[in-house]
Amino acid sequence: MGGDSQHPLGVPSGGGAGVAGARTGSERSGVNALDRWLARRIMQEAGNPPLRFALWDGQDAWSPEAEPAGRIVVRDRGALWAIVRSPELGFGDCYSAGRIEIEGDLIDVLYRAYRAMEDKASSSFKKSILGRLPRAGKNTPGGSRKHIHHHYDLGNDFYRLWLDKRMVYTCAYYENAEATLEEAQEAKMHHVCRKVRLEPGQQVVEAGCGWGSLALHMARHYGVRVRAFNISHEQVAYAKEQAERSGLASQVEFIEDDYRNISGKYDAFVSVGMLEHVGPDHYETLGEVIARSLKEDGLGIVHSVGRSRPSAVNAWLEQRIFPGSYPPSLREMMSIFEGNQFSIIDIENLRLHYAKTLMEWLERFDANVSTVRKWYDEAFVRAWRLYLGGCSAAFLSSSIQLFQVVFTHRCHNRIAHTREHLYRRAANGADWSFN
Amino acid sequence: MGGDSQHPLGVPSGGGAGVAGARTGSERSGVNALDRWLARRIMQEAGNPPLRFALWDGQDAWSPEAEPAGRIVVRDRGALWAIVRSPELGFGDCYSAGRIEIEGDLIDVLYRAYRAMEDKASSSFKKSILGRLPRAGKNTPGGSRKHIHHHYDLGNDFYRLWLDKRMVYTCAYYENAEATLEEAQEAKMHHVCRKVRLEPGQQVVEAGCGWGSLALHMARHYGVRVRAFNISHEQVAYAKEQAERSGLASQVEFIEDDYRNISGKYDAFVSVGMLEHVGPDHYETLGEVIARSLKEDGLGIVHSVGRSRPSAVNAWLEQRIFPGSYPPSLREMMSIFEGNQFSIIDIENLRLHYAKTLMEWLERFDANVSTVRKWYDEAFVRAWRLYLGGCSAAFLSSSIQLFQVVFTHRCHNRIAHTREHLYRRAANGADWSFN
Repeated sequence: MGGDSQHPLGVPSGGGAGVAGARTGSERSGVNALDRWLARRIMQEAGNPPLRFALWDGQDAWSPEAEPAGRIVVRDRGALWAIVRSPELGFGDCYSAGRIEIEGDLIDVLYRAYRAMEDKASSSFKKSILGRLPRAGKNTPGGSRKHIHHHYDLGNDFYRLWLDKRMVYTCAYYENAEATLEEAQEAKMHHVCRKVRLEPGQQVVEAGCGWGSLALHMARHYGVRVRAFNISHEQVAYAKEQAERSGLASQVEFIEDDYRNISGKYDAFVSVGMLEHVGPDHYETLGEVIARSLKEDGLGIVHSVGRSRPSAVNAWLEQRIFPGSYPPSLREMMSIFEGNQFSIIDIENLRLHYAKTLMEWLERFDANVSTVRKWYDEAFVRAWRLYLGGCSAAFLSSSIQLFQVVFTHRCHNRIAHTREHLYRRAANGADWSFN
Repeated sequence: MGGDSQHPLGVPSGGGAGVAGARTGSERSGVNALDRWLARRIMQEAGNPPLRFALWDGQDAWSPEAEPAGRIVVRDRGALWAIVRSPELGFGDCYSAGRIEIEGDLIDVLYRAYRAMEDKASSSFKKSILGRLPRAGKNTPGGSRKHIHHHYDLGNDFYRLWLDKRMVYTCAYYENAEATLEEAQEAKMHHVCRKVRLEPGQQVVEAGCGWGSLALHMARHYGVRVRAFNISHEQVAYAKEQAERSGLASQVEFIEDDYRNISGKYDAFVSVGMLEHVGPDHYETLGEVIARSLKEDGLGIVHSVGRSRPSAVNAWLEQRIFPGSYPPSLREMMSIFEGNQFSIIDIENLRLHYAKTLMEWLERFDANVSTVRKWYDEAFVRAWRLYLGGCSAAFLSSSIQLFQVVFTHRCHNRIAHTREHLYRRAANGADWSFN
């Protein structure tokens, strides 16, 4: 990538070697039969999504039998070959660089594409053209720190532009269709707290605490003491400041350290949006950390992006946005629990909630895009829009899921017999009453 | 087992070769140092449960440091060796034959024993004395029919003695502590129906329908048409009679056939208490059956006894009570879903509900034991009490779990966004209103 590595997302500019070595002014050259054949082949391998596919002469090289929902335009031959060589990485990089355009609603177009690709039973697209993707980088303590720094230390100001006011960067929970993002993030935090049945005076440990919103919420609304771990320096600094400002610093301790270094015994173990960065090789270790940290009658929750079946991570997302990330299937997640004799109490899939959360983030991002453009270049803006829109589409097409897994030690019998308490209004957090 | 094979449970009588080849009047002989050493060794290997362990001289060969919750009495040397040779099978058979006694509350004593065994981290009990248990018999269509006949065709009159009036032979759902068994079984059926969001006019397929209670319930309360499969001849005959009697024969079709022969397309796939009899080797096949039977926007539920981690089945239970049975861990269950690209929506663990259900069954069994004794011998009565009490204890000690797994095809997006509808009273089934 050479000089491009300075870019915050590693996004190569127009002619970057990272995308397509030979961009030889082909946009001015004509489109030939091979180009059109490749375009048709790409769409066939993608399961024939209901989209038009045009090349740099402006003509559709492929159009669907069904009513098209939008159009993909490849602006030069190098971009076409980049898709052939590495469909996910090539598409993402060339879109970021403005060498591929998406006409129509971004999320809808990507949803149609993902859905068609998933529908294509044999998934021959990846198998024939691409082969198996390399696995994510090693999430050793040192590797994790580098990976987390890449994404989460982009700058709090950037995230403040489009997240809710509490800076919650995980799936919200929409109790009804009218809920705003702020309300849905508040509801998500209550949902998590109710699932582990927090009570005043309890000790809670949080693994991967983001900007600290959930830790502060637990302390504020449930009267618990929290030790919250995170390896992102910027996030921890922000969270500590929030704790001071809200007078909760005596209840909430933010610790810039790896989840593997959690010590002590707790009534609840909470992890929302960290598992994606842990990697399957470390699930047993995570399970051991939880097993030694959770009191005998404690409850735990792991909230994570997941899959319906084990699959390779989208190469572009993994290399440009979330290095080291891996969303596991439930079978894979069980490595955390089965080896450590936990009893799974409850699993809920909130994938459509994350699709909606991401739509709202993208809307807010777009509303503030002029500010983003002052700080970053256009490739960053396009990459970020592709990431937010693409993830929303991936949740809509069920390419990815969102699992909340509640568990306890094997022999803990003083658990709630039903889940009705989760749906009882104002049971906890009396100051929480939007409708 | 020779002549003992005629017994409905295969329970050998007092001196049966199946239990202990050499029962040479040792109850009259004294207890020697080796006997006492074996007794202590057995209790050590079982994780030192808080129970006394006495031999045929009436003396405790082992007593716990903690307050004992009850006492196990081994009445002859052959029974002691039967436990050493095959802890689960030997104990179960000798208890059934009256050669082992349990003093104290049956469920509580077994709970203490199971809990201690599970606590013993290395599980060296099974490893050192027993080795790995043989796997369950093959559940091919022919094998399944034989296995199901063994248990479910014991006679409807027998089950009528101690099940609820609707003959529901699966985990009930206690919405509150005061609910009766009848109410809890009714509530379970509503809980299942709400989870798959039944609507009038829909087509439902049920795999493993027992005596037909759920199929009739769905037709009666939700106005759906049901095709219900079961390979137990006696159960299907009973279910057909119930359909006729209740005027639901035009809505519910009971079919004496294997789940593998399910045909047609359905809005809901329902299976309550069948998976235990399917066997992991056939989970992918089951998944394929569901995948081809469920409409694109259909919902499915699989309700099954499970485990926190893969483990060998209790040898006595597998050989005497439920041949071919195997309760899977969630990881193992995922073979049904992940290969067929289902999206898991919701998993709920109801293990404490099954513990309570089994307690109620045992109470009803005991209240009617004089009738059972007219039909079967004492070994049958004892075996059945050990089975009901032992399973209740196994759920209490978390040795086994009860999972309800709700799922849908990958791309079905018109699903309920929250689970609040499950806890809304009288949303469906207006005639259902106990409190």
